[in-house]
Amino acid sequence: MKELQDKIINEGIVLNEEVLKVDSFLNHQVDPMLMMSIGQEFARRFENQAIDKVLTLESSGIAPALMTALYLKAPLLFARKQKSLTLTDNLYVETVYSFTKQQTSDVTVSRKFLSPGEKVLIIDDFLAHGEAAFGMARIVEAAGAEVVGMGIVIEKSFQDGYRKLQEAGYRVESLARIASLSIERIEFAEQNIPVSSR
Amino acid sequence: MKELQDKIINEGIVLNEEVLKVDSFLNHQVDPMLMMSIGQEFARRFENQAIDKVLTLESSGIAPALMTALYLKAPLLFARKQKSLTLTDNLYVETVYSFTKQQTSDVTVSRKFLSPGEKVLIIDDFLAHGEAAFGMARIVEAAGAEVVGMGIVIEKSFQDGYRKLQEAGYRVESLARIASLSIERIEFAEQNIPVSSR
Repeated sequence: MKELQDKIINEGIVLNEEVLKVDSFLNHQVDPMLMMSIGQEFARRFENQAIDKVLTLESSGIAPALMTALYLKAPLLFARKQKSLTLTDNLYVETVYSFTKQQTSDVTVSRKFLSPGEKVLIIDDFLAHGEAAFGMARIVEAAGAEVVGMGIVIEKSFQDGYRKLQEAGYRVESLARIASLSIERIEFAEQNIPVSSR
Repeated sequence: MKELQDKIINEGIVLNEEVLKVDSFLNHQVDPMLMMSIGQEFARRFENQAIDKVLTLESSGIAPALMTALYLKAPLLFARKQKSLTLTDNLYVETVYSFTKQQTSDVTVSRKFLSPGEKVLIIDDFLAHGEAAFGMARIVEAAGAEVVGMGIVIEKSFQDGYRKLQEAGYRVESLARIASLSIERIEFAEQNIPVSSR
């Protein structure tokens, strides 16, 4: 997605060869017009999937996922991230490890908002090792619902998340795929090769 | 706002006389069409204020604030909530107490995204005692920027936040004002009386 790539080139800050900061338009400050384009593009890519619900993870996933849900005319559900839980009644809970933050957190969704047979599109801001995406997928599947695909705003293609998700049979659509990061240059990869959905 | 009041009546769950759960359309599952109406309504109420930026607090403020920012053609900035911080370089930090969660957290905004003289609209999902709203206002003012108003999705008018904010001179626009909560009935208050902005 050209508009997104341009934004990454113009405003992204490379902290090191693994970390790209995009807090001027996605993670802290948010560009609403860009979110609209992103939502429209995800909706276009998944429009024939009869999606019942869009699922994301707080907080940075909410903006792109809300716009996607708007275009797909489906409710948005955002999973909550908590340190660790004592009270887990009526919740789906999955433990997710963040390589960036080097910490584990519980990702939770209320049982009443996912039903067996529902078709769910997972949206996230970043894909690195796939921890968050797998965690959300496990929640969807624990509910007896189906992951029809994953929409990623920025994929760090030099990490193994995309490959692992693809091997697990998920259809992953990333709007920007970063092949390599250095202070001098952000290199984009080609569009990912479509795989059939599960 | 009729559409919002209807949604509260039909889907809100009164946990006790102080707590209303609206996690089917605002706090966990989110209704994107309703968020669009909410954003449009806030934008209408503040359209003559030449707003430079919309500020909210993660996570539940993001959806209504994003739509407001979209209609106002302004960037959205979401403050982050953290347990307690050791590294506060380049951050505005304010401590906010949550009566609901009975805990204190640090609310932070990166210094680079607020500039002196900017006109800022603060959006939040709930107004109870005003702690979060005052915290965000202190951040805006610490940056030398101006709070031109506050847009609240649901005001619990039986708590003192609205009165305190009004006394402090802030213009507060709430889309639904709850006069009282009981298991049997949710009573709405009249629209708030407009006060001149600071």
